[in-house]
Amino acid sequence: MIIVMKPGVLPKQIREVMERIKKMKLEPHLLRGTERNVIAVIGDERNLHRQPLEAIPGVENVMAVLKPYKLASREGKKERTVVRAHGLTIGGRALAVIAGPCTVENRTMLRQTARGIKALGAHGLRGGAFKPRSSPYAFQGLKVAGLKLLAEARRESGLPVVTEVVDPRDVPAVSRFADVLQIGTRNMQNYELLKAAGKQKKPVLLKRGLAAGINEFLMSAEYIMAQGNYQVILCERGIRTFNDYARNTLDLTVIPALKELTHLPVLVDPSHGTGKREYVIPMARAAVAAGADGLLVEVHPHPDRAWVDGHQTLSLDEFARLMDEVGKIATAVGRTLN
Amino acid sequence: MIIVMKPGVLPKQIREVMERIKKMKLEPHLLRGTERNVIAVIGDERNLHRQPLEAIPGVENVMAVLKPYKLASREGKKERTVVRAHGLTIGGRALAVIAGPCTVENRTMLRQTARGIKALGAHGLRGGAFKPRSSPYAFQGLKVAGLKLLAEARRESGLPVVTEVVDPRDVPAVSRFADVLQIGTRNMQNYELLKAAGKQKKPVLLKRGLAAGINEFLMSAEYIMAQGNYQVILCERGIRTFNDYARNTLDLTVIPALKELTHLPVLVDPSHGTGKREYVIPMARAAVAAGADGLLVEVHPHPDRAWVDGHQTLSLDEFARLMDEVGKIATAVGRTLN
Amino acid sequence: MIIVMKPGVLPKQIREVMERIKKMKLEPHLLRGTERNVIAVIGDERNLHRQPLEAIPGVENVMAVLKPYKLASREGKKERTVVRAHGLTIGGRALAVIAGPCTVENRTMLRQTARGIKALGAHGLRGGAFKPRSSPYAFQGLKVAGLKLLAEARRESGLPVVTEVVDPRDVPAVSRFADVLQIGTRNMQNYELLKAAGKQKKPVLLKRGLAAGINEFLMSAEYIMAQGNYQVILCERGIRTFNDYARNTLDLTVIPALKELTHLPVLVDPSHGTGKREYVIPMARAAVAAGADGLLVEVHPHPDRAWVDGHQTLSLDEFARLMDEVGKIATAVGRTLN
Amino acid sequence: MIIVMKPGVLPKQIREVMERIKKMKLEPHLLRGTERNVIAVIGDERNLHRQPLEAIPGVENVMAVLKPYKLASREGKKERTVVRAHGLTIGGRALAVIAGPCTVENRTMLRQTARGIKALGAHGLRGGAFKPRSSPYAFQGLKVAGLKLLAEARRESGLPVVTEVVDPRDVPAVSRFADVLQIGTRNMQNYELLKAAGKQKKPVLLKRGLAAGINEFLMSAEYIMAQGNYQVILCERGIRTFNDYARNTLDLTVIPALKELTHLPVLVDPSHGTGKREYVIPMARAAVAAGADGLLVEVHPHPDRAWVDGHQTLSLDEFARLMDEVGKIATAVGRTLN
Repeated sequence: MIIVMKPGVLPKQIREVMERIKKMKLEPHLLRGTERNVIAVIGDERNLHRQPLEAIPGVENVMAVLKPYKLASREGKKERTVVRAHGLTIGGRALAVIAGPCTVENRTMLRQTARGIKALGAHGLRGGAFKPRSSPYAFQGLKVAGLKLLAEARRESGLPVVTEVVDPRDVPAVSRFADVLQIGTRNMQNYELLKAAGKQKKPVLLKRGLAAGINEFLMSAEYIMAQGNYQVILCERGIRTFNDYARNTLDLTVIPALKELTHLPVLVDPSHGTGKREYVIPMARAAVAAGADGLLVEVHPHPDRAWVDGHQTLSLDEFARLMDEVGKIATAVGRTLN
Repeated sequence: MIIVMKPGVLPKQIREVMERIKKMKLEPHLLRGTERNVIAVIGDERNLHRQPLEAIPGVENVMAVLKPYKLASREGKKERTVVRAHGLTIGGRALAVIAGPCTVENRTMLRQTARGIKALGAHGLRGGAFKPRSSPYAFQGLKVAGLKLLAEARRESGLPVVTEVVDPRDVPAVSRFADVLQIGTRNMQNYELLKAAGKQKKPVLLKRGLAAGINEFLMSAEYIMAQGNYQVILCERGIRTFNDYARNTLDLTVIPALKELTHLPVLVDPSHGTGKREYVIPMARAAVAAGADGLLVEVHPHPDRAWVDGHQTLSLDEFARLMDEVGKIATAVGRTLN
Repeated sequence: MIIVMKPGVLPKQIREVMERIKKMKLEPHLLRGTERNVIAVIGDERNLHRQPLEAIPGVENVMAVLKPYKLASREGKKERTVVRAHGLTIGGRALAVIAGPCTVENRTMLRQTARGIKALGAHGLRGGAFKPRSSPYAFQGLKVAGLKLLAEARRESGLPVVTEVVDPRDVPAVSRFADVLQIGTRNMQNYELLKAAGKQKKPVLLKRGLAAGINEFLMSAEYIMAQGNYQVILCERGIRTFNDYARNTLDLTVIPALKELTHLPVLVDPSHGTGKREYVIPMARAAVAAGADGLLVEVHPHPDRAWVDGHQTLSLDEFARLMDEVGKIATAVGRTLN
Repeated sequence: MIIVMKPGVLPKQIREVMERIKKMKLEPHLLRGTERNVIAVIGDERNLHRQPLEAIPGVENVMAVLKPYKLASREGKKERTVVRAHGLTIGGRALAVIAGPCTVENRTMLRQTARGIKALGAHGLRGGAFKPRSSPYAFQGLKVAGLKLLAEARRESGLPVVTEVVDPRDVPAVSRFADVLQIGTRNMQNYELLKAAGKQKKPVLLKRGLAAGINEFLMSAEYIMAQGNYQVILCERGIRTFNDYARNTLDLTVIPALKELTHLPVLVDPSHGTGKREYVIPMARAAVAAGADGLLVEVHPHPDRAWVDGHQTLSLDEFARLMDEVGKIATAVGRTLN
């Protein structure tokens, strides 16, 4: 940690900072510059997190040198994590494509979707039973009945199921029926939900928050891991910017950035990430070209009749085209999509 | 609702959209323009929320005319809501200033703070017992023990207590001890928590999310109100932008904007909104000048020893200056701070 | 154009708006809804641009139906524009890769770079002679001497030259020496420079501004085209968001969005778009996968001795790897890179 | 400057960095930590600006300790700058209110505006003769004819004139007619224009760019000052964020931040900063409460007939109310508006 003191700082203010650091069993080094004095701290600065150094008179700025996460960090664990769930493998050489409707509507459409995507090569089935909707008057999902339909579709298709959980109280039920628990964008910093997901055994797919910096994203993964569940999958799904031509701004550079910082696998959701059907296939290609370990895609047999998110949902024909085009990109980057 | 059709749209695509609208008991009007055909919908377009009109071939764009919220809207309720809780009044001519530490640390500091701010004219005591921290290794609050200390401080000081709840399972406990339940920034779209808060009787202080548009903010208030609890207080606390000189960007223009759209009272939190002690007092003045109904401010007897957020916390002396300066602004805008 | 009137609007306010529209030779249609009255305008609404309709009492909101640009629009010109300059072709099936140093430093390094990239298959040479630097004390480019070195490098290597112009007064000189004039991010809305570039004959490469919406980007292209120069190349190079792990946020979704709206070719600059050498190759792959017509990349024989932007500049070895990897992606999307 | 080395950095990489620093006549200090090695640099790190330290293998991150600007910095000049121009004083105890139409339309309206605002207590007249418009088809201003009308209005009213310059070639003409040259948002990083403005004698009002960080804003001021013109006025006018309810997000916290960093005076433009007439007066009050040295406000005798920006322009009656309300805030913060 580097502590920059204000110009004109008093000797006793410098001493106060040095004392605090020593009390935490760390080693402060004072560097006297021409315009600023700087105190560099040797040792694990994460021990300083309870010390409000910036609140001490004379301190101008505190700059961290180390990352705030440990379990999620590649420095701690060099080999990449491969998450496995009911035949689904995320993080290896083969890409994982998880597809399905935004929301589970009924048995017929879910079965039709599962069969369709399975035949086209998808590796997992997604579908919402508990839906976080921005309007209290909008359809909130079939809940447990939806979970049961998902379990049924899994039995029939053999596809592992990824579904969202939005309430710590529902974690046991979702964990019983699903193969992977999804934590959505709006809940990325719902720490009680993260803890509950960390306490059960199924892998957790964590979506990046709309305004989450990369450290915050990894700290939310760390929350789950700190409970003992190391099977975490990260998912980029668009951030909020001034952009007006698309619902969100898909931040694909986060893929190489995450690959540098963490050993966890990284998926991309081009459906929510763009919010527009026309952009889904090009951005799916781009995500894989940038190094993503797979995709999460909204597919519905009849997007124009989907209850939710129809404007960003692919039909089965379009999904077939996605698989074809993404398959070529996979080959080009030395990966497979079989 | 205005539906803009693509150039070259087919007659049957236009018919399809018109049919859908009629099925929802709404009235479509087709306007043939030189470059675009447009369908205007007469009637309550909110009934269309389950219709994925944008997914229908031939549709270029759908523009809403009405606001998506009703209970929170000023169109439904002209007179301004005044929230009352244990002597605290928010939304009337008098401003409400709620102060206290970021987190409840122990009895002594809480008592000292409560006495101090009470003597300086504060109207409520804030303090966290359940803390949503971005690191799983950071102090997470004293929990129920913290709630008990808050209740004790209330008895002694007479100040009503505002405290955060982060888990639907904790709502009953927090509701028993607190006078106002706070829902924090990271949980603004934690809909299960909003519903739980809407089902109990105490007023709810809802903080704006870091990336929340004004409609989303009001829709989250609508979630609480849709459960029957109309005592909602909105709180601006800074949004996330590219700005690097402060932790967040305090968006004060949202105050007149909210006053136009909703009857709910609006507070401002200049501590989180700026993240830096030096900016708190000027922005507290600005918030009141812009029309805020009050302030939420972090105060600690010894900010440089605060466990959390010391860099943005005022000392009691600084809080005295805030009250003095804000009092003058209150007078200048025809309000009181007594 | 759709004009939404406020609730409680007066009949004479509606009449006032209708009159204004008729005066502009357009046809207003009044639609009386249950909660709002709406006036739809038939005809070319771009004629209304001098009418401050939103300033008329009773008007709540004005929503445009048509795009504000014409020459840049795909509605006006269906076939895609292919820009040609001294053997360089941008916008056809073959991709265009333009590489070179951020700034022209001297004859030796420029010659070395030009030879190096030419041998690796680059199609154009970039290099700054006039540099827009954020510090007045930083090196501002070799200016005309730099242009001459670029012209020399072109003669020797056969590579067409792309170089930035920052002042309308320099347009004739840059136009004489360069094959393509670049207008940089900070000057995207420097309208006098756009006009000057539109008045000369060489193609113009227009970089997107850090905070430019897609309409603004296209309107800046329209500025150039309105002067008679239709040879405009668009270039995405990262936008400014809250992201902290990279200098900018490369917005690749803008590629399919632009392809839908305009006939102009689209390049991507992954060097500025990420600001970090490690991210350049993955994002170059992603850009081509998303449909870009080519790349603009910073290359220097010795990035760690580059005067400017060394942290985001590739060495020739790294550029060789980029060409190899991008070539495979090109094949996967049905394009060529030879 | 603090240089953080990567984990696993080689001794020769550390030596390379140390050598580079010594060559620049600065003093490197190597601090060996448990997880990272850090090199702290003593001396004026601004000398390192041509050294691409981040491009050296083994370097993870470079953190600046000093600010990049000098002339604009409060560290160099403690006393606040007061700008004076033809009777206008900006930066003293008295606030400066500069009002007028977005664009000069004709003699009658300009004269009417100048008289009106003068009678209501304005201190300066603003009005555009050269207009940077986002559409090439929109009215671009009366140019020199507009300058002459402004000069005439100044003679008649006695009000000093502030007007925008958009092209370095126009600087002499604008400098002859105007009392203060305005450089607009879109040109904040048009460095050739900044240099030209820095070479003439009249004060320069510099508006913050839509996506400008505080350092970039001050570096643009530094550009002007580096040419010898120290009479620079900064103006906050809204930044671009995800906000949808207003055209821009007025960032008032930048006022106390700028007051800490620079001695230059700071104005606020609540007209562009909000883009909506209803928000102008509350945000004008808030700006002054936050510590602004004055306001730049759009006023027109008939906003609903204004050629440009009518939706954000005040009528003279509204401007009278602004002056009344801002006057009370001025008193509350110990300033005057006479």
